[in-house]
Amino acid sequence: MNTYPSKLLENAVSELSKLPGIGRKSALRLALHLLRKEIAEVEAFGNAVIKMRKDICYCKECHNISDAELCSICSSPKRDRSTICVVETTRDVMAIENTGQMSGIYHVLGGIISPMEGIGPEELEIESLVERVRDGKVKEIVLALPTTIEGDTTNFYLYRKLNDLSLKITTLARGVSIGDELEFTDEVTLGRSILNRTLYDGAFLKK
Amino acid sequence: MNTYPSKLLENAVSELSKLPGIGRKSALRLALHLLRKEIAEVEAFGNAVIKMRKDICYCKECHNISDAELCSICSSPKRDRSTICVVETTRDVMAIENTGQMSGIYHVLGGIISPMEGIGPEELEIESLVERVRDGKVKEIVLALPTTIEGDTTNFYLYRKLNDLSLKITTLARGVSIGDELEFTDEVTLGRSILNRTLYDGAFLKK
Repeated sequence: MNTYPSKLLENAVSELSKLPGIGRKSALRLALHLLRKEIAEVEAFGNAVIKMRKDICYCKECHNISDAELCSICSSPKRDRSTICVVETTRDVMAIENTGQMSGIYHVLGGIISPMEGIGPEELEIESLVERVRDGKVKEIVLALPTTIEGDTTNFYLYRKLNDLSLKITTLARGVSIGDELEFTDEVTLGRSILNRTLYDGAFLKK
Repeated sequence: MNTYPSKLLENAVSELSKLPGIGRKSALRLALHLLRKEIAEVEAFGNAVIKMRKDICYCKECHNISDAELCSICSSPKRDRSTICVVETTRDVMAIENTGQMSGIYHVLGGIISPMEGIGPEELEIESLVERVRDGKVKEIVLALPTTIEGDTTNFYLYRKLNDLSLKITTLARGVSIGDELEFTDEVTLGRSILNRTLYDGAFLKK
């Protein structure tokens, strides 16, 4: 559809279609949806996005998205500051926080090493991580990066950078997902889950 | 995911998730995508949407979206003003314009009669259509509404409103789509395409 009845509509559609996963047809649908809304609602929409981009901060400690210089996790007195969980993005922090199982603090790399996309270690918050652990108060680094080649590469790079600092370096347990059928679990995962089998804990399952 | 690291992010996500077909997870993905863009780009995005909503006009003749009081189709001297094609929305105008087969002008109802959704004839641009044809210069009304119960209801309502004005009232031809297999065409469409069969025109197919 190329014949837009209005330049204003066309402009809004082309902006909306720059969003990932939204083509021109979907963008047109979104634009027409917004046209049916009150002006105040559309202003709230546009301004929320602009304000977010303009005013958002990144925590100077963990580099997570934050409203202040220090994020709410880094500034919390309840957190165990001897454990740092290393993740790729803010979304991973949110996912782990939702489990309620991480008592430590985080370090957001802002990506992972990917030669294919031209992302090297110097583009990521790796030096600042080494800086953070240098004072010796950190006892454990939990690597919670994706289980991809890029994730493994980054894990290995971090391991070499951090290994001489006498830290415990751990990674998330790999195993069969809860609710998954064994026959549909891939071989590598199933193999690892056998090697790293744990003592049966009925109490955990009954909870 | 409820634990947003920033109020600004949370606010942007909740605004983005108001868009149709975008849940909170997709909205978070879009917000993080926008965070990686330049401030100027995000401002262009937000302002294009706000400006569209604030400044867009509707053509006083056909009620299509327009940048001026009269849309480019209604103000074009090349258009056949004796034929009015009645459609539900702007998107239908765009779809028909893309075919290049409609030399007439349009009338955008802004919806179709739907008792289920509480949309009656008075919510739509029906009176203004009757007004437009009253001067006797319009010779044909092409009903190009959806082939749904609501579309049929609206067609019938318009037919009763317009029938005493000595107009030719037509609807789009229904038939087998080009490229479709007969065995997968529904019975009603196939039946109608037999009843309304046309003279074989080899020239059209060779074009």
